[in-house]
Amino acid sequence: MERNLSLLTDLYELTMMNGYYLNDRRDEVAVFDVFFRQNHLITYSVAAGLEQVCDYLINLKFSADELAYLKGLNLFDDGFLEYLKNFKFTGDVYAVPEGTFVFPGEPILTVKAPVMQAQLVETAILNLINHQTLIATKSAKICYAAQGDSVMEFGLRRAQGPDAGVFGARAAIIGGCSSTSNVLTGKMFGVPVSGTHAHSWVMNFPTELEAFRAYAKVYPDATMLLVDTYDVIRSGIPNAIKVFDELVAAGHKPVGIRIDSGDLAYLTKKARKMLDDAGYTYAKICASGDLDERSITSLKLQGAKIDLWGVGTKLITSEDMPALGGVYKLSAVFDGDRVIPKIKISETSVKITNPGFKTVYRIYDQAGMAQADIIALREERFDTSRDLTIYHPVDRWKKTTFAAGEYTLKEIVKKVVSNGELAENLPLSLKDVRAYADKEKATFWDEYKRIDNPHVYKVDLSDGLYKLKTDMINEIRRG
Amino acid sequence: MERNLSLLTDLYELTMMNGYYLNDRRDEVAVFDVFFRQNHLITYSVAAGLEQVCDYLINLKFSADELAYLKGLNLFDDGFLEYLKNFKFTGDVYAVPEGTFVFPGEPILTVKAPVMQAQLVETAILNLINHQTLIATKSAKICYAAQGDSVMEFGLRRAQGPDAGVFGARAAIIGGCSSTSNVLTGKMFGVPVSGTHAHSWVMNFPTELEAFRAYAKVYPDATMLLVDTYDVIRSGIPNAIKVFDELVAAGHKPVGIRIDSGDLAYLTKKARKMLDDAGYTYAKICASGDLDERSITSLKLQGAKIDLWGVGTKLITSEDMPALGGVYKLSAVFDGDRVIPKIKISETSVKITNPGFKTVYRIYDQAGMAQADIIALREERFDTSRDLTIYHPVDRWKKTTFAAGEYTLKEIVKKVVSNGELAENLPLSLKDVRAYADKEKATFWDEYKRIDNPHVYKVDLSDGLYKLKTDMINEIRRG
Repeated sequence: MERNLSLLTDLYELTMMNGYYLNDRRDEVAVFDVFFRQNHLITYSVAAGLEQVCDYLINLKFSADELAYLKGLNLFDDGFLEYLKNFKFTGDVYAVPEGTFVFPGEPILTVKAPVMQAQLVETAILNLINHQTLIATKSAKICYAAQGDSVMEFGLRRAQGPDAGVFGARAAIIGGCSSTSNVLTGKMFGVPVSGTHAHSWVMNFPTELEAFRAYAKVYPDATMLLVDTYDVIRSGIPNAIKVFDELVAAGHKPVGIRIDSGDLAYLTKKARKMLDDAGYTYAKICASGDLDERSITSLKLQGAKIDLWGVGTKLITSEDMPALGGVYKLSAVFDGDRVIPKIKISETSVKITNPGFKTVYRIYDQAGMAQADIIALREERFDTSRDLTIYHPVDRWKKTTFAAGEYTLKEIVKKVVSNGELAENLPLSLKDVRAYADKEKATFWDEYKRIDNPHVYKVDLSDGLYKLKTDMINEIRRG
Repeated sequence: MERNLSLLTDLYELTMMNGYYLNDRRDEVAVFDVFFRQNHLITYSVAAGLEQVCDYLINLKFSADELAYLKGLNLFDDGFLEYLKNFKFTGDVYAVPEGTFVFPGEPILTVKAPVMQAQLVETAILNLINHQTLIATKSAKICYAAQGDSVMEFGLRRAQGPDAGVFGARAAIIGGCSSTSNVLTGKMFGVPVSGTHAHSWVMNFPTELEAFRAYAKVYPDATMLLVDTYDVIRSGIPNAIKVFDELVAAGHKPVGIRIDSGDLAYLTKKARKMLDDAGYTYAKICASGDLDERSITSLKLQGAKIDLWGVGTKLITSEDMPALGGVYKLSAVFDGDRVIPKIKISETSVKITNPGFKTVYRIYDQAGMAQADIIALREERFDTSRDLTIYHPVDRWKKTTFAAGEYTLKEIVKKVVSNGELAENLPLSLKDVRAYADKEKATFWDEYKRIDNPHVYKVDLSDGLYKLKTDMINEIRRG
């Protein structure tokens, strides 16, 4: 699926590039951070979309067709268009691996590149990271609610366009889903695909029983029957059991049933009993229909008998919060090798950006559980044989000390693109990304992952960053 | 941008196709309707996405690569895979033109095709129509609130992936936006693109004034300055006025300013006064930052002085309702030329589908304003020289009569694909689609378009359809 996304950008990125070009600032190197802000629905997030960002960056180029279009806008200098003709992204990118748990305020991706390049790529990077991180996070929450049951992603028909379906399903797998109904995602990323039949199949035969028999004939060892076209209890399940009996008599083993509507708590408990009474204790019950982490939690509490969850609309659109709101902010420029930190001031403390060329460390306890993150300047060094004190980003009096010997430190941000080239170990297979995400999940206590009022994970500033930020704010307020 | 979306489908469409193939039902023709259901946020909708649906259908084919993937799933008969090798969509599609106002329950798109084909295309059709109709509608609501002011679409960075940005912007234009920041959409559909500079531009110069001067140097006749990087009132606007004065002295005409944060009512009123006092009564004020139809309405009520609206996240994700929920339901099968209507029963009256091969008529009054829609069977004929009575889809006692001579009737559904070939007049340019959408808008009273508690537009059933539906329900309940 070859696509050129070079024009997938906001016009102002190009007008600013043209501006830098004509102001003779084309070689100036700048640093931009991607991060998102806290809100009542953002607790932890699961980083995703990095593979597509890297793919976009290393393949970025402008074809004759695109240059002709830009020329036609009458906004750009001819020299600038000539510059675009030979455009190649030559910068560095630092980012947390996909599947990493990330938190508000942390630079989850940092671009260091000539400012014209760094500016051009802002929009696509935000688009890709915002989308996939959003869906991977929603998936993680839904899978948390499902308490280890398999969750199947079924949302393609309600996704916001083809990419939202394809890459949303990819992100859903990273977040914890076991399969997707989306065949294109299955092919592109080698993940399991799932699905059996729809109501239309049943309606298209003279009777439900005939429809079930026709399906079982084709998939005798993979018969999962949708039982709610007419009446689950009076017709769907009795007909399914009849067909299961026929399958067993012919030496096959049916898989189970799916219920897509109605009161799922009542119907699945009743269905379980009917299946058990008929000897099908092994038959799985799959439920679908407008599910999310809240309805799954509620169904679990009600004792619904559901083995497999099919989740669509509310997962693939992250229905309660359909945008992550990640931003891309200038944090430094380079004067030769010297870093000149930049800060954006605001009347609201939390909206003041963190200046400088930064990275993120995660602090673990001796059991390997995550304790807190530190945003630090790249040049800072930490001596883990000594106590470590970290500071709240705004309220200096809020600090925490980790005793020497009782903590370990891991830099969670890695260099993924160097001088425009992808790091050697990338891209990972989606299977490896998922394995990493599962490991990440296991290092966070449930208190951080629960759906309602989770414990707020600490993201603090290093000593060096806190001092730099305070000094810069004071200087601006004096000036 | 060549892409093969043949696998953009749910796995169950393919397993059902394989099932029809092996059950020797591959030539059976079926009719499926796309429609969506009422909810408190769905009043009118603006149909969009049809061009992409047609494009998908007429280009649908399976490459060797895709067939190899499907074979590897071990789910499909070899004969079926051979059938896919020569697959071509040969059906008919009937749909309302893009930009048409549509309402819950109406078949806005109908596919008549061999059942295997009709089943395959379900997922992609729903994905494309659900997404673009959702965003076109949100755009129409936002533009309604803006009362004729220009609205610019700025959401690419928050869209759910590249397609959501590109086709979302297309839909936003259909709904009423005047331009988009998305350059790729601009190129693909020939629509105006807009944007100037970001906060990073200002931060990347020693002072705001220098940043403004540098920008004005590059775009002396298109200078729109972002004034909220530091302090709108104390620094941004005074600096902008200084640069405007310099531009005017050099024979240019500045365009205006943009404010992207803070209290937009207070700041724009203050800004207007400062600009006016400096002689820039013609300078435009553009506002952006988390806007939607509600905040725009509120700003208008507060007397905010805003000429141009930049709308991003909440438009491009349809934040308060990120999925339209359109469905694709079997409504008939053909036995030779004979239509056999199909119905899906539910305990909930509004969830019972409308059976048969149908179309939609719109009733206009003598002034050309829309009065009501009728869903009718294709074979029904209406004699407009006689009175016309229409019936509520559920409550038969709710009926309305239009007197002969006082109404006209227009079939709003058109045949857009015949035997797999696109109708001659298609595709329309986006400009033509937009012009049509504007005309559509003008035929609906404000009472239907207002944001809160709009009047519910009548969508009733024809006599023939009402009778067919009632007969079928009664027969099923007897059986």
